Amino acid sequence: MEARVNVITLAVSDLQRALEFYRDGLGLKSSGIIGTEFVGDEVFPPGAVAMFQLDGGLILAVWPRANLARDANLPLSAPSACEFSIGHVVGSREEVDAVLAQAAAAGATVTDAGRERPWGIYSGYFQDPDGHLWEILFNPQPDWSVPHL
Amino acid sequence: MEARVNVITLAVSDLQRALEFYRDGLGLKSSGIIGTEFVGDEVFPPGAVAMFQLDGGLILAVWPRANLARDANLPLSAPSACEFSIGHVVGSREEVDAVLAQAAAAGATVTDAGRERPWGIYSGYFQDPDGHLWEILFNPQPDWSVPHL
Repeated sequence: MEARVNVITLAVSDLQRALEFYRDGLGLKSSGIIGTEFVGDEVFPPGAVAMFQLDGGLILAVWPRANLARDANLPLSAPSACEFSIGHVVGSREEVDAVLAQAAAAGATVTDAGRERPWGIYSGYFQDPDGHLWEILFNPQPDWSVPHL
Repeated sequence: MEARVNVITLAVSDLQRALEFYRDGLGLKSSGIIGTEFVGDEVFPPGAVAMFQLDGGLILAVWPRANLARDANLPLSAPSACEFSIGHVVGSREEVDAVLAQAAAAGATVTDAGRERPWGIYSGYFQDPDGHLWEILFNPQPDWSVPHL
């Protein structure tokens, strides 16, 4: 396998809410909800999805949880907020705090405000409306190979 | 917020197993487990982590679930496999099948073998040893803005 990730698909309970959070609240570019022509059948889930174009060609997608489970052939399970986090690096401590504030204003829950961590970064976390964790972080060290950036 | 993701951190139950799966099984480059000098205290979790350098500067990290929960100031919850998926795009249907086979040989569970999906892609899913979903996909359409790639 090549060392490549092209898409991060987040399972959501309300597609429109997720679109509005990431597009209107955080300012990510999106064409809105697409794929509504794929209505689903006995074999496949509906295809309606929203995508956000990120730097470097990476795509962030939001897709209803039940549809992801069906597409992957998995039973639906209760949500868990401790499965993963998405790390977003910024240029200063002030910018960490500003992004956390922006997320909170958009409806996110800041679970841990910006603070210094033992491994040399300043970071804080928010959960999107579906509980998915983002860590906003500033690493003052030029060596990006240090733990946790 | 800028349209940028720098890190994807996966919560794992066994750091060594996760390292071996991604490094030895899937062939991703890693310096192994680092940050062991951060032993944790009453405030912060231990810092031991493994990271994998992906194309475009993206980092895939594996970190014990309990430590992620503590760092984010969240209660630990039962794992859920339906929170997200990571999409990995390859150049052909045969390559989809080959990556799924490689993952299975490395200890992954293929939950859905490669097949055509209504939105025009050929894809299959595997779960890593901690249940995290990867979708390996081929999109024969040149227009990458189509749903689900």
